[in-house]
Amino acid sequence: MPHIQLSEGLPGIRGLFAFRPETAKPLCELAEVLLHTPGTLSLAERELIATYVSSENDCYYCQTAHGAIAACHLEGNEKLVLNVKRDFEHAAVSEKLKSLLAIAGKVQRGGKNVQAGDVERARRQGATDQEIHDTVLIAAAFCMYNRYVDGLATWAPPDPASYRERAAKVARDGYQGIPADVQAAQAGRT
Amino acid sequence: MPHIQLSEGLPGIRGLFAFRPETAKPLCELAEVLLHTPGTLSLAERELIATYVSSENDCYYCQTAHGAIAACHLEGNEKLVLNVKRDFEHAAVSEKLKSLLAIAGKVQRGGKNVQAGDVERARRQGATDQEIHDTVLIAAAFCMYNRYVDGLATWAPPDPASYRERAAKVARDGYQGIPADVQAAQAGRT
Repeated sequence: MPHIQLSEGLPGIRGLFAFRPETAKPLCELAEVLLHTPGTLSLAERELIATYVSSENDCYYCQTAHGAIAACHLEGNEKLVLNVKRDFEHAAVSEKLKSLLAIAGKVQRGGKNVQAGDVERARRQGATDQEIHDTVLIAAAFCMYNRYVDGLATWAPPDPASYRERAAKVARDGYQGIPADVQAAQAGRT
Repeated sequence: MPHIQLSEGLPGIRGLFAFRPETAKPLCELAEVLLHTPGTLSLAERELIATYVSSENDCYYCQTAHGAIAACHLEGNEKLVLNVKRDFEHAAVSEKLKSLLAIAGKVQRGGKNVQAGDVERARRQGATDQEIHDTVLIAAAFCMYNRYVDGLATWAPPDPASYRERAAKVARDGYQGIPADVQAAQAGRT
């Protein structure tokens, strides 16, 4: 049961967005910029970083939601998403993405863990300053989103299938704007 | 030395804001809503939560910057800020704030650490759902800001005095809008 009174039927962070629209707005905008606006890292790469960090933080809702979105960008390859979570160094992803996932993993355990050697490894694989910046901020942001979702004990659907439908929509439309069902729940509170 | 090329002269997160204005906007807006807009938690209480979490994450820049802002809201009482960081259960703050700092400390170590008993303790001291929500999100957000600042190895002025001048301005004007020196650095990059 959530630690605070949330709208029923909205799982994970979506119930929190309905509870507090003032913070929902910048939280959605940050996700949109990091995960969905055009950039040199693919949408799949960015969602894999988010999924991996959420998995390391043991956040079921975020790793399942973003894992499903990552799979959408990978033509449904859920096996690859699982392999990245379990052991990315041996997964079928580029050496560049492995080097960025290594940085993300260090950030998850604490910012000071990132060493010059980790950044050099990424640069040798062609990573730019902005890609390194965005990797660190995606990892840091999911240390926030994961704690927000679990720190308030939000509800998460246990069945992975229920995440797939919504994932297709987010993969296409992104994180901008408050979804209709969250808006309805917000309106119900006021 | 920072892991990526940042404008010289802008310490901590401010150099990162100049590097990536697209993410600076929602990051500033989130801080403004959580730390500076009118609410039932005082500005001092909210800055103390941010400072305590940053201290637990061992982020020198954030704990010194927000500690100085907290002190501004406490008529310069830097000793109280230090006592909260060292041992808040015995500091001269309200029982309600102690219960919220306890929740923040749990969130810092991972969202799942927050137990029903922690929330009950806060409710017994009069904390509302929104105050509990905001405490969890402030703690979660500083787990992001701290990792962002340290994960990219940003520069921090060693002298606490240099934080006081800027703290007075932020305590008064808040976090909204990009400061003139950050704007100038952004313009220099484009």
